[in-house]
Amino acid sequence: MLRARGFASDNNAGVHPDILKSMIDANIGHAIGYGDDIYTKQATTTIKELFGGSVEVYFVFNGTGANVLGINNLGQSYHSVICAETAHIQVDECGAPEKFTGMKLLSVSTPDGKLTPGLIKKYLHGFGFEHHSQPGVISITQPTELGTLYTVDEIKELSELAHSMGLHLHMDGARISNAVAALNIPVKTFTKDAGVDVLSFGGTKNGMMYGEAVVFMNPGLDHNFKYFRKQGMQLASKMRYIGAQFNAFFANELWLKNASHANKMAQLLYQKVKDIPGVKVIQPVQANGVFAKIPGHLIPKLQNEYFFYVWDEQKDEVRWMCSFDTTEDDVNEFAALLKKMVQNN
Amino acid sequence: MLRARGFASDNNAGVHPDILKSMIDANIGHAIGYGDDIYTKQATTTIKELFGGSVEVYFVFNGTGANVLGINNLGQSYHSVICAETAHIQVDECGAPEKFTGMKLLSVSTPDGKLTPGLIKKYLHGFGFEHHSQPGVISITQPTELGTLYTVDEIKELSELAHSMGLHLHMDGARISNAVAALNIPVKTFTKDAGVDVLSFGGTKNGMMYGEAVVFMNPGLDHNFKYFRKQGMQLASKMRYIGAQFNAFFANELWLKNASHANKMAQLLYQKVKDIPGVKVIQPVQANGVFAKIPGHLIPKLQNEYFFYVWDEQKDEVRWMCSFDTTEDDVNEFAALLKKMVQNN
Amino acid sequence: MLRARGFASDNNAGVHPDILKSMIDANIGHAIGYGDDIYTKQATTTIKELFGGSVEVYFVFNGTGANVLGINNLGQSYHSVICAETAHIQVDECGAPEKFTGMKLLSVSTPDGKLTPGLIKKYLHGFGFEHHSQPGVISITQPTELGTLYTVDEIKELSELAHSMGLHLHMDGARISNAVAALNIPVKTFTKDAGVDVLSFGGTKNGMMYGEAVVFMNPGLDHNFKYFRKQGMQLASKMRYIGAQFNAFFANELWLKNASHANKMAQLLYQKVKDIPGVKVIQPVQANGVFAKIPGHLIPKLQNEYFFYVWDEQKDEVRWMCSFDTTEDDVNEFAALLKKMVQNN
Amino acid sequence: MLRARGFASDNNAGVHPDILKSMIDANIGHAIGYGDDIYTKQATTTIKELFGGSVEVYFVFNGTGANVLGINNLGQSYHSVICAETAHIQVDECGAPEKFTGMKLLSVSTPDGKLTPGLIKKYLHGFGFEHHSQPGVISITQPTELGTLYTVDEIKELSELAHSMGLHLHMDGARISNAVAALNIPVKTFTKDAGVDVLSFGGTKNGMMYGEAVVFMNPGLDHNFKYFRKQGMQLASKMRYIGAQFNAFFANELWLKNASHANKMAQLLYQKVKDIPGVKVIQPVQANGVFAKIPGHLIPKLQNEYFFYVWDEQKDEVRWMCSFDTTEDDVNEFAALLKKMVQNN
Repeated sequence: MLRARGFASDNNAGVHPDILKSMIDANIGHAIGYGDDIYTKQATTTIKELFGGSVEVYFVFNGTGANVLGINNLGQSYHSVICAETAHIQVDECGAPEKFTGMKLLSVSTPDGKLTPGLIKKYLHGFGFEHHSQPGVISITQPTELGTLYTVDEIKELSELAHSMGLHLHMDGARISNAVAALNIPVKTFTKDAGVDVLSFGGTKNGMMYGEAVVFMNPGLDHNFKYFRKQGMQLASKMRYIGAQFNAFFANELWLKNASHANKMAQLLYQKVKDIPGVKVIQPVQANGVFAKIPGHLIPKLQNEYFFYVWDEQKDEVRWMCSFDTTEDDVNEFAALLKKMVQNN
Repeated sequence: MLRARGFASDNNAGVHPDILKSMIDANIGHAIGYGDDIYTKQATTTIKELFGGSVEVYFVFNGTGANVLGINNLGQSYHSVICAETAHIQVDECGAPEKFTGMKLLSVSTPDGKLTPGLIKKYLHGFGFEHHSQPGVISITQPTELGTLYTVDEIKELSELAHSMGLHLHMDGARISNAVAALNIPVKTFTKDAGVDVLSFGGTKNGMMYGEAVVFMNPGLDHNFKYFRKQGMQLASKMRYIGAQFNAFFANELWLKNASHANKMAQLLYQKVKDIPGVKVIQPVQANGVFAKIPGHLIPKLQNEYFFYVWDEQKDEVRWMCSFDTTEDDVNEFAALLKKMVQNN
Repeated sequence: MLRARGFASDNNAGVHPDILKSMIDANIGHAIGYGDDIYTKQATTTIKELFGGSVEVYFVFNGTGANVLGINNLGQSYHSVICAETAHIQVDECGAPEKFTGMKLLSVSTPDGKLTPGLIKKYLHGFGFEHHSQPGVISITQPTELGTLYTVDEIKELSELAHSMGLHLHMDGARISNAVAALNIPVKTFTKDAGVDVLSFGGTKNGMMYGEAVVFMNPGLDHNFKYFRKQGMQLASKMRYIGAQFNAFFANELWLKNASHANKMAQLLYQKVKDIPGVKVIQPVQANGVFAKIPGHLIPKLQNEYFFYVWDEQKDEVRWMCSFDTTEDDVNEFAALLKKMVQNN
Repeated sequence: MLRARGFASDNNAGVHPDILKSMIDANIGHAIGYGDDIYTKQATTTIKELFGGSVEVYFVFNGTGANVLGINNLGQSYHSVICAETAHIQVDECGAPEKFTGMKLLSVSTPDGKLTPGLIKKYLHGFGFEHHSQPGVISITQPTELGTLYTVDEIKELSELAHSMGLHLHMDGARISNAVAALNIPVKTFTKDAGVDVLSFGGTKNGMMYGEAVVFMNPGLDHNFKYFRKQGMQLASKMRYIGAQFNAFFANELWLKNASHANKMAQLLYQKVKDIPGVKVIQPVQANGVFAKIPGHLIPKLQNEYFFYVWDEQKDEVRWMCSFDTTEDDVNEFAALLKKMVQNN
């Protein structure tokens, strides 16, 4: 029997009570639509302050919208976007980036989901040659889709390379809270200060209901964004409820508490499963996900009780995500079940 | 001083308490993302039943998304879409239909926001001529953006014309509840039974927070829609909260109660203002909006106290929308203020 | 029996012998592809000189390519393009502008194919309002698709209006030679000097085989055009043959001789048919086309002998185009046949 | 001093005299535009016969147009196209496929430009999963961009794999003549009979001026192609001149004579350079191109006298293409110069 809670995705969790309460509190009277309300303004101000003020903030419905529209503002349709072959924009957005921006995505094989200057070098050519999509954007995910983290220096290296050759750096921060919590440094340090040009600032995977922010690190980069957001079908009419969510998200450091907890649960899960015979954790556990190789025939049995995704069917690799509401009991019971299954094997 | 409630748009209202409660009630445990949850399934079932069963239902974030994706499934990029020049898809979606579908929009001047066979006839030519965008879709809005209603027969005439020439009929039902309440007939009667092929079924303007449904009236028309929805950035991850909203929306006929009330308030407003000297109501008041011409210099004064939109600046035409939470006091005070202003003129 | 020559379109004519000879002469040895050859350079220089030097010139395959790519460089996907409802971009390009640029086309009903400030005024609103496609481009055709001509002052009025409101002015010059010949002024006078921002400079309809030029009147407007041309599938590999055509086109004023002749033949045709009972010429004959209303039942009979297009089936309106190779005999015989048919009616 | 003829590209060559003569011969009288002429009809018939009759043939301006429009008809915007990382559609079309079709291109690293079932297997997953671009098209180039050839069996393997999983097989035949000449089998054998669904049939690189054909191997696959061709800006008005070119191309087996000659010259070049010390031919010479690694400092010196492209700057790899007009003297002199440069090194 499928449990009430599993390790499928941090978006299978619900909404944190504080966030829900904030939405309820915002449900008073009329508010001008499309963002010109006090809740959205407060959320905007808070995010601006996180980045030292001079950034531009826009809210959209979801992560795909944030990524596609953020990248769209960094180039023209003849540009290319260099990303890891595991990037969400490459494998999990059904071609939304190509469809809306017209750009070519160039995907790079990586051991751990992280781009490096060495790995992307081969795509940095053909500048000025009109037959060739012009390298325009480097896109990284922090933490990566494999649960790993870039250091500040690694991001700086990429941004310096990008800027030195006329490219921009995009960061998919669908799980940005988990990165901040894990690195234990201000979000500004590894984004704006490290040379990121635009950030998809996620909330849904960390206790929100819907809504993400696109943060342009330098004024001007957001040029005409409001029109593209509308044309991209990502302008919410009753936007106050997105603003209200973010206000609770940032109040009392809820975003970091939620993320720290999810990260901690992933560490606990890692500790519990790493020594089970036949189970091999295949990526460093640096955020809230654990990637492991387990005996293939156990996968469906385990999925009968807990829902989670198979990451690579051919290699028997699975992904277990922890969320703000994962409990120690959840982890202990899951690890115990896995252990038992392996032993009875 | 701007009042807490105005007549700007039915999306300036908040969320109906029953709907909010349903969202809160759905906030328990984990739910599989992207629609495979019990709340979304229930909402789907309810909507299917409204249309007699054999329809296909998909949820998206907003009205623009519903219109664009619904229309997209009715044709190819070389098709044209015939609509009123006041249609939301023509004037209020910042070119989203052209951008995503590649289709050409052909807009028709109308006296009351309503297309007729006679009005669109001139666009129904060039079939098979490859130089010409092929007529593919007729799109109507019910009730129209001018607050008027199509009768069942008028819709049938359009669908018969469309189908006889190989076109499809799309209905933008952002305010579909107001139409059902005003016509006092089942929604199926003036949509599926009248030959509509795809309907944007709105909720946000009638007490929901976000979320609309795309209803394909005949199986097959939704071919591959799920991929286009994802590629169109309109797939919600925590979809259960959209499902939960629609469940409360349909429970106890809330959608019709809300809509009836809004319609009634518009009628009241109409009665209160129609005889004020210098005020001329310019469209039949058939749903929840009142369109009027008022002395131009009074517009900014009135807007200082109540937020509403100027519909046509050159003609001093304004739009007043009523919503589920508009009260008789709201209407009476507003009409009284307008009357006073006119008299003091 | 269908004649060897008719009045269907100026692109039914062949290639002028001088132009063909120039192509043959260019067929020597190797030439670097994609425009870096002496023929293309010479043609570029000649066109630049026509406009006083500081313009940018690019060659493409055809008129649709020239229009779409020229307009594309004048705006972003959220812009709108205002044009006559008879404009080639509106009715004869199968939605190519919408598909490639993502822009919305707004078409204006006109008596004679010509836009005026008064006619387009109603579309010049909604600036800064993100729900609304932003007015970005005014597109005119010179001579128009109805065979009429803008005066220099009329073009200036439009460009001044456009520029005063932040829009650009595009001119479709598929038959630009006919306009120069008819107005008897330098092409620069009614394009660059009159405020046109980008011109589609046609050749195919005036004796060339294929190939058109896009002329950006101010440096900077062509920003990144070379990439869009390639991405738009309009970059010719053996471009020398387009350059060679234009070189003959401009040598010995061939382009103006050809166009003058075609214009003269249209005048002759007009004189011959204008007094035939039942025939009504419905547009001023200012370039190389004659638009007339004739008895409907005669249309198929006449088309049995001469191929031409019916312009408006419902109104029995037809279009007769003259080309550089139309002879006086062609015109006289055609007019005589028409007269006879009417008399035998 | 740069020679009149080099080894840059087979599109640097001019037009074969027979083809030019055919164009001149077609320059008589009027012809209905857009393909409804006797020259185009004859060319269509000839190509149909090459494939046994039941195929559909359309002419376009250039190779990029043929590839993009051919692929476009094989899927929807949410599909992906699997190709070699050296494919023209991936590296030499400036993102035209993504821009027009909206599809995602997935590029595969190959040793020799050839896809194999093993190499593409990893991309054949995620079917039915709406987050993932659906595998829709496998695209191969014959001969490849590296001058290598697929055998009939290799193509069959790919088409069987494609069809068994619901994909289509596209072949970029920009140099299809060279493949036919080299394989010495009918073109039908390694295209239609081997399971290819749509072929870009090239002419420009083998002695034509412009114009390519898109050949749909099974009726139905070309559904609505004519509209997409127009919307894709690839419909030539004076199409008779493309038809006339193809008619000469196929008369007296000119296409095969030209291609055989180019292939032979490449073999000669290979023989002449393969034993020069420091020169390493890095791909099998199977068509009309020779790919070699040469001492890096000699590249600019050699390019001072002969224009050719550096294929990989980092690896000192160059590409030498032979064309229908390459002479034995050209090859001998070039090889001798290279040899001398190496010796004087």
